[in-house]
Amino acid sequence: MYLVRYLKDQVEHFGYLEGETIGSLTGDIFGDFVRGGPVAELSEVRLLPPCTPGKVISLSLNYADQLRALGVPAPELPPLRFKAPSAVVAAGEPIVLPAQAQAVHPGAALAVVVGRPGRWIAPDEAAAYLLGYACANDLQALDVAELDQGWTRANSFDSFLPLGPAIATHADPTELVVSGSVNGVVRQLATTHDLLFTVPQVVAFVSAAMTLFPGDVILMGTPAGTGPLAGGDVVEVNIEGVGVLRNPVTRAP
Amino acid sequence: MYLVRYLKDQVEHFGYLEGETIGSLTGDIFGDFVRGGPVAELSEVRLLPPCTPGKVISLSLNYADQLRALGVPAPELPPLRFKAPSAVVAAGEPIVLPAQAQAVHPGAALAVVVGRPGRWIAPDEAAAYLLGYACANDLQALDVAELDQGWTRANSFDSFLPLGPAIATHADPTELVVSGSVNGVVRQLATTHDLLFTVPQVVAFVSAAMTLFPGDVILMGTPAGTGPLAGGDVVEVNIEGVGVLRNPVTRAP
Repeated sequence: MYLVRYLKDQVEHFGYLEGETIGSLTGDIFGDFVRGGPVAELSEVRLLPPCTPGKVISLSLNYADQLRALGVPAPELPPLRFKAPSAVVAAGEPIVLPAQAQAVHPGAALAVVVGRPGRWIAPDEAAAYLLGYACANDLQALDVAELDQGWTRANSFDSFLPLGPAIATHADPTELVVSGSVNGVVRQLATTHDLLFTVPQVVAFVSAAMTLFPGDVILMGTPAGTGPLAGGDVVEVNIEGVGVLRNPVTRAP
Repeated sequence: MYLVRYLKDQVEHFGYLEGETIGSLTGDIFGDFVRGGPVAELSEVRLLPPCTPGKVISLSLNYADQLRALGVPAPELPPLRFKAPSAVVAAGEPIVLPAQAQAVHPGAALAVVVGRPGRWIAPDEAAAYLLGYACANDLQALDVAELDQGWTRANSFDSFLPLGPAIATHADPTELVVSGSVNGVVRQLATTHDLLFTVPQVVAFVSAAMTLFPGDVILMGTPAGTGPLAGGDVVEVNIEGVGVLRNPVTRAP
């Protein structure tokens, strides 16, 4: 099942996606809900990000090919950074390259969406705390990170986290092909077999420090191969069985 | 005016504080509201954190005495870190020292509470975007930061951000005495005259990267003098004209 959030006639709705058709959904996607018949075509509505996270945690290093590309040893613990929830935009919305940044890199990432509150979640119980998975583009301004000697601004400019189009509730996070492309050319390609830290391990590690709440998002890292974006580019994150997330790139005036 | 949020008979309310008495408040504290007569005594209710931030940004270095104590040069830009909103607790709630951390230090901090959405806010217009100021305790687990080579977990364990008791809407952030004490002994004492980056400068800098939303919180840094906490301690943050924030400390079993 693919859960979406959308605007129609200025009203916000949840729904589920069946091909290009949106079906009605009554209730709370983080609690009980009932699915109904078709209510709109995807082309008739404005998609919103499928959830509004209270916190977003990003793994800065989690793919074997990225370790090799950077020539660094494998971290012993999952390396975590926050992104501001205010950076989230929907599928199709522009990624705005800020005036202060020249080296903005995209990052194809599997997003884990938390479904119910949990602390000290055991790895083998992690799946029960998750609502599902989404495509994310984990953008970073590398030049700003160097200037700041830190990642707070660099990770969190407005529009630096395209998320969606939907939350796939049925995906198996051990068996996914994750790819990132710019203008139709694939730049990043890996599978979640290559993850250094698996989804259950990361959920356990994070929740040992802080309570995870419904809608919180964990970004599972990004494969090697990213490079700087330019205005006019179109960036795509494609995760088999989860979705295709496409966003145009513009430069702030 | 001192704005509070509280639970009474299991229902959440906003109100305003007049001494030990809570007055009624109808409407939205981030929009229009009307104040009414007394509805409860402070002792009869359970205080909640006065707002529920979408993002929390903390300045890691912003007091002259802290620079001297650490022997480091003044940063050229405000050094920013995120804290998880899930770390927020109310005045009076316990600070829980996590099992994974031995060196948890408190940090008396002035919290700036955003009142309306803004991006690219000019320093001389910053005040118009703020709802007010609160006391915050910006806790950090220094040993976890060293282990992780980063501040994500170290800053954001549950209960690592006591906030409150109220939002003071009238305070002048250039003229405040900020003190932090443990078991009645003052360990940190400075004034906001000593801030390296002022409230308007920081609001301008942050909002040049990311939109600030109502309820977002910026912690203005903490003076020198903190040390590790132990179970049974009582920690207090006292900001003249803003409030007194007192929290007991317990160690997780």
